[in-house]
Amino acid sequence: VTQALHDVLWQDEEIARLFSGEAEIAAMLGYEAALAKAQAQSGLISTEAASVIETLCAGFAPDRTKLLAGIRRDGMAVPELVRQLREALPEAHRDALHLRSTSQDVIDTALTLRLKPVFALYKTRLERVIAAIDRLEGQYGALIQMGRTRMQRALPIRVSDRLSTWRAPLRRHLARFAQLAPQVLVIQTGGPVGIDRGPWIEALARELGLDVAPEGWQTQRDNLAELASWLSLVSGTLGKIGQDAALMAQNEIGEVTLEGAGTSSAMHHKQNPVRAELLVAMARFNATQLSGLHQALIHEQERSGAAWALEWMILPPMIETTAAALAMAAELLAQLRFRAVGK
Amino acid sequence: VTQALHDVLWQDEEIARLFSGEAEIAAMLGYEAALAKAQAQSGLISTEAASVIETLCAGFAPDRTKLLAGIRRDGMAVPELVRQLREALPEAHRDALHLRSTSQDVIDTALTLRLKPVFALYKTRLERVIAAIDRLEGQYGALIQMGRTRMQRALPIRVSDRLSTWRAPLRRHLARFAQLAPQVLVIQTGGPVGIDRGPWIEALARELGLDVAPEGWQTQRDNLAELASWLSLVSGTLGKIGQDAALMAQNEIGEVTLEGAGTSSAMHHKQNPVRAELLVAMARFNATQLSGLHQALIHEQERSGAAWALEWMILPPMIETTAAALAMAAELLAQLRFRAVGK
Amino acid sequence: VTQALHDVLWQDEEIARLFSGEAEIAAMLGYEAALAKAQAQSGLISTEAASVIETLCAGFAPDRTKLLAGIRRDGMAVPELVRQLREALPEAHRDALHLRSTSQDVIDTALTLRLKPVFALYKTRLERVIAAIDRLEGQYGALIQMGRTRMQRALPIRVSDRLSTWRAPLRRHLARFAQLAPQVLVIQTGGPVGIDRGPWIEALARELGLDVAPEGWQTQRDNLAELASWLSLVSGTLGKIGQDAALMAQNEIGEVTLEGAGTSSAMHHKQNPVRAELLVAMARFNATQLSGLHQALIHEQERSGAAWALEWMILPPMIETTAAALAMAAELLAQLRFRAVGK
Amino acid sequence: VTQALHDVLWQDEEIARLFSGEAEIAAMLGYEAALAKAQAQSGLISTEAASVIETLCAGFAPDRTKLLAGIRRDGMAVPELVRQLREALPEAHRDALHLRSTSQDVIDTALTLRLKPVFALYKTRLERVIAAIDRLEGQYGALIQMGRTRMQRALPIRVSDRLSTWRAPLRRHLARFAQLAPQVLVIQTGGPVGIDRGPWIEALARELGLDVAPEGWQTQRDNLAELASWLSLVSGTLGKIGQDAALMAQNEIGEVTLEGAGTSSAMHHKQNPVRAELLVAMARFNATQLSGLHQALIHEQERSGAAWALEWMILPPMIETTAAALAMAAELLAQLRFRAVGK
Repeated sequence: VTQALHDVLWQDEEIARLFSGEAEIAAMLGYEAALAKAQAQSGLISTEAASVIETLCAGFAPDRTKLLAGIRRDGMAVPELVRQLREALPEAHRDALHLRSTSQDVIDTALTLRLKPVFALYKTRLERVIAAIDRLEGQYGALIQMGRTRMQRALPIRVSDRLSTWRAPLRRHLARFAQLAPQVLVIQTGGPVGIDRGPWIEALARELGLDVAPEGWQTQRDNLAELASWLSLVSGTLGKIGQDAALMAQNEIGEVTLEGAGTSSAMHHKQNPVRAELLVAMARFNATQLSGLHQALIHEQERSGAAWALEWMILPPMIETTAAALAMAAELLAQLRFRAVGK
Repeated sequence: VTQALHDVLWQDEEIARLFSGEAEIAAMLGYEAALAKAQAQSGLISTEAASVIETLCAGFAPDRTKLLAGIRRDGMAVPELVRQLREALPEAHRDALHLRSTSQDVIDTALTLRLKPVFALYKTRLERVIAAIDRLEGQYGALIQMGRTRMQRALPIRVSDRLSTWRAPLRRHLARFAQLAPQVLVIQTGGPVGIDRGPWIEALARELGLDVAPEGWQTQRDNLAELASWLSLVSGTLGKIGQDAALMAQNEIGEVTLEGAGTSSAMHHKQNPVRAELLVAMARFNATQLSGLHQALIHEQERSGAAWALEWMILPPMIETTAAALAMAAELLAQLRFRAVGK
Repeated sequence: VTQALHDVLWQDEEIARLFSGEAEIAAMLGYEAALAKAQAQSGLISTEAASVIETLCAGFAPDRTKLLAGIRRDGMAVPELVRQLREALPEAHRDALHLRSTSQDVIDTALTLRLKPVFALYKTRLERVIAAIDRLEGQYGALIQMGRTRMQRALPIRVSDRLSTWRAPLRRHLARFAQLAPQVLVIQTGGPVGIDRGPWIEALARELGLDVAPEGWQTQRDNLAELASWLSLVSGTLGKIGQDAALMAQNEIGEVTLEGAGTSSAMHHKQNPVRAELLVAMARFNATQLSGLHQALIHEQERSGAAWALEWMILPPMIETTAAALAMAAELLAQLRFRAVGK
Repeated sequence: VTQALHDVLWQDEEIARLFSGEAEIAAMLGYEAALAKAQAQSGLISTEAASVIETLCAGFAPDRTKLLAGIRRDGMAVPELVRQLREALPEAHRDALHLRSTSQDVIDTALTLRLKPVFALYKTRLERVIAAIDRLEGQYGALIQMGRTRMQRALPIRVSDRLSTWRAPLRRHLARFAQLAPQVLVIQTGGPVGIDRGPWIEALARELGLDVAPEGWQTQRDNLAELASWLSLVSGTLGKIGQDAALMAQNEIGEVTLEGAGTSSAMHHKQNPVRAELLVAMARFNATQLSGLHQALIHEQERSGAAWALEWMILPPMIETTAAALAMAAELLAQLRFRAVGK
């Protein structure tokens, strides 16, 4: 994917780090190490093999050129990564690596492993946005402004009324974690055709700090589709805040001013509501993407290379955009100064 | 909306009835009657006024030509419907009608009122589809077929393994009602700018058999967006079943045959997996629509005529398609005969 | 598809008539009659058979119950319709009907047959919208208003400047017919697997007033996907006009007023920019649908029941919405009164 | 945007280079230089000023930290870039820079400047894919295989029949350049509110190797929306090829084998049709994105920061995915070996 100049606007450094190639490889290596450890506990492989594998994975730096060639050939990184790891192992322990596992176990679990800190980040940022709204309510809540319906003046409301409509869905999004987390923060296991549930899976999950799913979910992607819906709900709520802010900041309306708004290359008097507009753009972006992730629910047979790749194309940008939108919403809210007008 | 020849394929009579103009008017009249009754209990209007309003609403047949003209003029039915009702009331009681209410209270509540039987219908049909899978498991579960990944033969699985991947997400969709219902099956109240929460709302909700939302949700549409996501999750799961069935029914694969499959106008030997294909089409349809409903989350200020109308355009077809897909899935499952092939 | 109360807002009577079940059957019968006539000219069937078939088709009323049952069984109307027609023919001529043809030839051609008057309707309405803009320019073009970028006052412009940005894309959409029409207004022929191009196809096309496509397009749907893009371009341009009008009509801005705007059930002072909002909703609707029609480009092998059905679900509503948006844009433009404000 | 491990699969080096931040800055500097030169020819600024500006732009390396901060503040790069350029100019020439221009003139023209080589690249690759199909036709065209409709065996066809349905739309996509290029490969001019069309614009366009648009298109985005449709048409056609190849390569069908197919981490006998699946994924990706770009047609007033940013988020990934799909299609076609089966 290209790294264009303006991408900085919807970029998020923490997410970028978690979804970098390096982080994915680290997560994959973490999976292989944890698998060996768990399988040793179940007596499937020797503790010596597990120990050698763990040590190898802890410090392994794959040959990057070969890895990229492997991705291009196999459509995914795991076959080549496992090949390199095997080569680096003493012959006696080679079979103990990646045992009764398959590429999808590795890749899906490497995803959920990284979704765990992502969820923590979302929680923190949602709370920060809510706190920013609380602050605005403390400062401006009692002010009277004009309620507007269908873009026409309707009846007066308090600023706290509008702020409440911004905040309530955000609180619900926080509450939705209770549904989402147990569906998403789980290991994927099942081996080649998804049915191998060995006795080591509890230990594997514990080792990785994830839960065990009631069954392999390699073709059951409702967890990821629901996550995507949640992402779009969050950015949609923030987009509504952005849209409201941009409308309130119109010169003739003037219900808010924006401290430190964007400047123009040609008109020095302008105060562009840049963050407000970007929240709208990011909301529309995620709403667009959501469709693609739901198309990927049609995951044929025991593994669909096409549907799975579509997830890879769509989910990470949605995750990053949501994180960026949360950060940007906090910035926008910090810029807002409500004014008593519009009686 | 046009009624094309092939629309019968994704039509559902029960849903069509619930979302007909007649049913919507009945729901709106039910709202006005219940509102009057509840407001009388709170002492806001006289019990006599309430009783007159209830009687009127129970048997009211609006002037349809004027109503359609009103919709075209006002962009919605309520102003004209209320006008006609007022005209039919004795002058003394006219002000008691639609009191401290607004069009959106009526329209949104008339939606959730009808979503209640829709939810019941979905529950019944989901259970029916699950039962059909259970039956197939009883008949064919122990058969061995070829597990296929990336459209290539992988390793043998039992038919029960594949059936399990069809059924598990359906069970989760049932469980998701516990999250959805309290968000969606609620009244909408708030009056012109959404902030009027009179003492009558508990009684109104009770009267209508709905719950009270913690606050008005006229610009907070995460409940409907989440409902839409659920609809697309359901049809997506069924689409995966359809895709699998169509692939298994290929002549050279022959893992299933279809009793009573579709015929061709030109080739009499063909057994077209019509229901399987339609499940795929309906899944892709809903995945497409979902994007539009999430675009409608950007609901500006205290009411967006544009975002709200977009919901009206998109949600009913999604609701009907999901119902039709559930019925069609049950039909498809009843057609399936698994065969032991593929060693 | 349900016929909900508010559907009248994006309905179009002329399109509804063209896409009714009756119109589709008539088009299908027209195809069979024209096919027989053309094949008789090529000597493939006797002129007597052709004449009998033409007479039958001219007045044929299918058994509707059986036809619907046939659609449900076969996933399309043609097999049952042909069966009924055959039954009504003298035995000697039965084989002459639907000869070397397939369901898709009938259904696709019955679509393009009806797209021809649709194109004419679009052309007329586009010209009407352009004329309405011309009129506004004549009345108000020299007025000075405030140009606004990023929702902030920028520099003064003339009303004619803004009108010009509304009109220019509409003119280009008209010009795009030159590309679209020869791709779309063509017959579909090819028989069961799409390769039968008999010597009668020129005559068939001439008979139907359509062109011959350079080859069968039963799995090559770029023509329909491009048509869908065009529809969304048109509604998108009109949505921009609607969005501008709603913004200009805000009370504090007041750059336009709307004659005969929508009324409110609760606030009698309001003038809701209903048509402006609906244009935005219809634009977002079509933009949403477009994605689904492009998903249908993945039309596997020699005919995809799934991709084809997805077209049936998505294209007619797009066609009708576009027609309704053109009519509504003309109405909105007739309502607009520009005012000199905003210095 | 994150750079995930598997992104290499839909990456394209040439496009990545053209859409890198460096390339965009270079294009922007090229615009400013050409503008100065053209304005000097029109006598608007002195030839000395133009010459100093050209020299500065030719070698200018912006302060990257400040530029990123500027993008974050202003929502775009131009204000800060112009500020840095002005600072680097002798005071006498500062006003001559970016004269009667606006950020959008720079950014939109910097886009179309880079679309010119992109179009050339697409043309080359389309021709390469067509040539690959021609080669397959030469080798295998006369082979008989089974035509399949609705995933069922229909009637025999020649390999050349199927190849023809792959190739014909690609040829049409090539022909569509004749419509697209004059709409897209144009400069954007208009200044702050889009209406300033100075006498220098012919010279500016000539200087940049682009055409003059009949008027400024800063809020008329049908050109970009149509480009996006074209991109999705191309990837959709390639997705159909991929879907066909994956179906034909199924073990029991065996109509094609794939030389050098992907390997599996767990099953060494498998030959995964990786490229075929990725073509499907990329087609569905672009079909998804297309919706978002059409949402951006609702470009309010004289510039919409929200709609414009949405274009920035969506168009470059579509451009790159299309390029990658064309390259991947050529690779897939080179892998295909058709076999005479299926009688």
